[in-house]
Amino acid sequence: MKTFSTVEQNTLKEIILSRRDVRGHHFSKTPLERAIVEEILTCAIHAPSVGFSQPWRFLMIENDATKERIYKEFVKQNAKAQALFKSEALYSRLKLEGIQEAPLNIAVFYKKPEKTILGQTVQKKMGEYSVVCAIQNLWLSARSHGIGIGWVSILRPKKVKKILNIDKNYALVGYLCVGYVSEFLEKPELETLGWETKKNLEDVVQWV
Amino acid sequence: MKTFSTVEQNTLKEIILSRRDVRGHHFSKTPLERAIVEEILTCAIHAPSVGFSQPWRFLMIENDATKERIYKEFVKQNAKAQALFKSEALYSRLKLEGIQEAPLNIAVFYKKPEKTILGQTVQKKMGEYSVVCAIQNLWLSARSHGIGIGWVSILRPKKVKKILNIDKNYALVGYLCVGYVSEFLEKPELETLGWETKKNLEDVVQWV
Repeated sequence: MKTFSTVEQNTLKEIILSRRDVRGHHFSKTPLERAIVEEILTCAIHAPSVGFSQPWRFLMIENDATKERIYKEFVKQNAKAQALFKSEALYSRLKLEGIQEAPLNIAVFYKKPEKTILGQTVQKKMGEYSVVCAIQNLWLSARSHGIGIGWVSILRPKKVKKILNIDKNYALVGYLCVGYVSEFLEKPELETLGWETKKNLEDVVQWV
Repeated sequence: MKTFSTVEQNTLKEIILSRRDVRGHHFSKTPLERAIVEEILTCAIHAPSVGFSQPWRFLMIENDATKERIYKEFVKQNAKAQALFKSEALYSRLKLEGIQEAPLNIAVFYKKPEKTILGQTVQKKMGEYSVVCAIQNLWLSARSHGIGIGWVSILRPKKVKKILNIDKNYALVGYLCVGYVSEFLEKPELETLGWETKKNLEDVVQWV
C-alpha cells in the first residue's frame, strides 16, 4: 500500500495553503504548454465521482472573441451585483475576474446522466458535487505547476451556455480563468483587505 | 513566490491518483489522533470559498448510538435505491458505506449566509460548492496520512439533520466516514467490477 512521508504530507499541505483564486491583474500572457494542461486535467479526472459516473466535461476556450462575449456578460452581471454592495466602496475597486487576461478559460460542465446513477438516487446534487471535486483537484495541480486559476461566478449559467452553444444536457458548474501568474498572494486578497476575517478550526468544527 | 519541484508536483499527483472512496470493510478500528484530525481539517478550511465566506461547518461524530441512527437511515434508503437497480445483481453485493466501522463520521454542512456574499449573487450554489472544495482538500490530506474517507450519499439530508439536531440555517453537503484503512484499492471498486468504465481525457475534454 502506497504510503506518504511527512515531507510528502507537508508538500500537499503547502500546495493547499498557497493556492489562490487568481484575478486578471496577476495573469501573465505566457502560453500554457498543452502537455502541462493535460497533466492538470489528468488530476481533475481522478477526482471522486458518485457511482464512478465521471460526469465532468471541460470546454477549453482560447478564442478571444468568445472570451470577449463572456466578459461582456460578466460586466453586465457585476454592475447588478455591485448595486447590492452599494455601502461598500471597496467593491467597485475589486478586480473579480481574469477572463481576457488569462490565456485559457475553462468552462466546466456537469453532464446530466442518461441512466440511474448509484449513490445519486437520494441526493440529486451529488453529480454536480463530483464536478466540483474535479475542479478542486485541477486547482491544486495547477498551483503545483505555478499556474493560477480564478473561478468566475458572476455570470448567468444560461447565458454562458448560450454563448458557448451548449445543449440542455449540460449544466455549467464553474467558469475558470487559467494561466501563469506574476505572483500568488501570501493571503487571500479579501482577507488582506479586511472584507472577511479568516475563520479558525474552533469557529467551524464541533465535536459531539 | 513559492514554487514546487517536479518531485513535489508528482507527489501531489500520486496522492490524487491513489485517493479512494473507502467503504466499511476496509476501515480499521485504530483510533484517530486528534492532532492528525486537526491537520486534515486545517487543509479543508484552506479551500477556496466564494467571497471568502468560508461557509463550511464540520460536525465530528464518534458516538456509536448516533452512528447507529444514521446507519438505520442508510439501510432504509438503500433498500429503496436497490429497487431502482433490480436488474443489477451486483448492487446488492456492494458495500456502500462504513458508518459503523469508521471510528469517526463527519457531517459537513453549508451554513447559509446572514448577508449578501460577494460572488454568490448570481449563482446561489457557490456556497455549497465551496464546501465541496473543502471536502476534497480533506480527502486528499487524509489520504496522505493513510486515512481513508468514504462519502455516503444514500441518506436523506433532512433525516440526517433531524438525527443530529441541526437547525434550518445549515444544509447537509456531505456525510463522511473517516478512519485508518487496511488497504487503499489499486483502482476504484466500481471500475474493477465493471460497473462503469474509466473515462479518458479525450472523452471529457473539448478544445474550441
